[in-house]
Amino acid sequence: MHARHLKLVVEYDGGDFAGWQVQPGQRTVQGTLEDALADLIGEESRLVGAGRTDAGVHALAMPAHVDVASELPADTIRDALNARLPDDVFLHEVADAPSSFHARHSATARSYVYLIGLSESPVWRRHRWFARGGLDLEAMDAALEPLRGELDFSSFCLTGSEPEHHRCRVDAISIECERRYGGMIVFQIRANRFLRGMVRSIVGTLVEVGRGRFEPGAMKQVLDAMDRSAAGPTAPAHGLYLTRVEYERGGMR
Amino acid sequence: MHARHLKLVVEYDGGDFAGWQVQPGQRTVQGTLEDALADLIGEESRLVGAGRTDAGVHALAMPAHVDVASELPADTIRDALNARLPDDVFLHEVADAPSSFHARHSATARSYVYLIGLSESPVWRRHRWFARGGLDLEAMDAALEPLRGELDFSSFCLTGSEPEHHRCRVDAISIECERRYGGMIVFQIRANRFLRGMVRSIVGTLVEVGRGRFEPGAMKQVLDAMDRSAAGPTAPAHGLYLTRVEYERGGMR
Repeated sequence: MHARHLKLVVEYDGGDFAGWQVQPGQRTVQGTLEDALADLIGEESRLVGAGRTDAGVHALAMPAHVDVASELPADTIRDALNARLPDDVFLHEVADAPSSFHARHSATARSYVYLIGLSESPVWRRHRWFARGGLDLEAMDAALEPLRGELDFSSFCLTGSEPEHHRCRVDAISIECERRYGGMIVFQIRANRFLRGMVRSIVGTLVEVGRGRFEPGAMKQVLDAMDRSAAGPTAPAHGLYLTRVEYERGGMR
Repeated sequence: MHARHLKLVVEYDGGDFAGWQVQPGQRTVQGTLEDALADLIGEESRLVGAGRTDAGVHALAMPAHVDVASELPADTIRDALNARLPDDVFLHEVADAPSSFHARHSATARSYVYLIGLSESPVWRRHRWFARGGLDLEAMDAALEPLRGELDFSSFCLTGSEPEHHRCRVDAISIECERRYGGMIVFQIRANRFLRGMVRSIVGTLVEVGRGRFEPGAMKQVLDAMDRSAAGPTAPAHGLYLTRVEYERGGMR
């Protein structure tokens, strides 16, 4: 049987996962999906995700690719996998893809949302970070300006990862205040690539600006320092959502 | 020591509670709060909530009152209780209240929100009901009209509760479509009082309208039937939030 190249789009609640990537003895999203695939197809396959979210980070739409020896229609595979998956993972899409499609390398843009709660909230405790202290939204908004464009984000890269380079092109970054749904600040960012811990480091630094501990102008100094110790603390994982990964036209969304 | 009359405002995630009201051998919100109070004050007190949410229903702001023999400042009581409460319950407010304040009887209006998810979602599985089938929002919106005003809501009252009468004055009821945050329909309702299961029965019926199984005009017929079996199914608890309880001016909000 010929191997088929499939694209998957996965949503998951990261709260009870040790992140995306397979790790021995840990409950991971990739591992959970590979187990379901093995159970369905009868042989092991290796999944490649568009990225590797850390423990606790959520994804509304994480693309992945996998080669499987199966002649089942793609929708049947999707439904059969969903029937095997736990309730914190769901496949929105399974589709045949051109062999050139690579979930990570073919991606041209990624978008994340980070939700900052405006008050302590048991209802949203797994979905928003309650950042204590009144936050100055105008100062936070002003602080975002120097982060737009193609820049070296070394100061917002967690140590332990060693990418070839630290340049990322941020083409959208914004905050807005949502007064409904209990009240929250919605942080959004879109870039061609992200470094490990980058969004959470930016959000952690941004909250320090909101609290008045950093001047809005400090963001530029943090960037220029090219040193993680210049930035603020890393915001917790449970407020972060991978919301979208884009591919070139002709490639697959 | 004189007993003090306190007003509390509690937020809780209903997911792991068998509802508000104390029941032997069950984990309840009232019981959890009373245990924390007993631990702090050194004697048992009985809490009275503004309402009794069912198992799984959330509350962003449930008022309650209690008499305690304590001379601690109200804010100190709040902080000491929060330190004793599990992470799915939080006291936003503890305040001295006039002896006439009764969390249930003094309330003049209550508001609920119900969140209907537009797609299956592991991230929001504990916070929204994913109602399968494309929903016709215009039909749903039109169906709400006959529910406004002071009416007999017997058809939307779960059996097992036997209130003196079934008349409720609904002064606001609406739906809107929120395309962000994964997409959802936000149902809101405000009334002077609610019958047991009333919001969930209205939402369950409304979704049948959205699916085209009930005509929009059916809502009037359901009301007129004054019989629970005329309505649609009861929507699940995890999409429902008590958001606000109001008191007369001069009383306490």
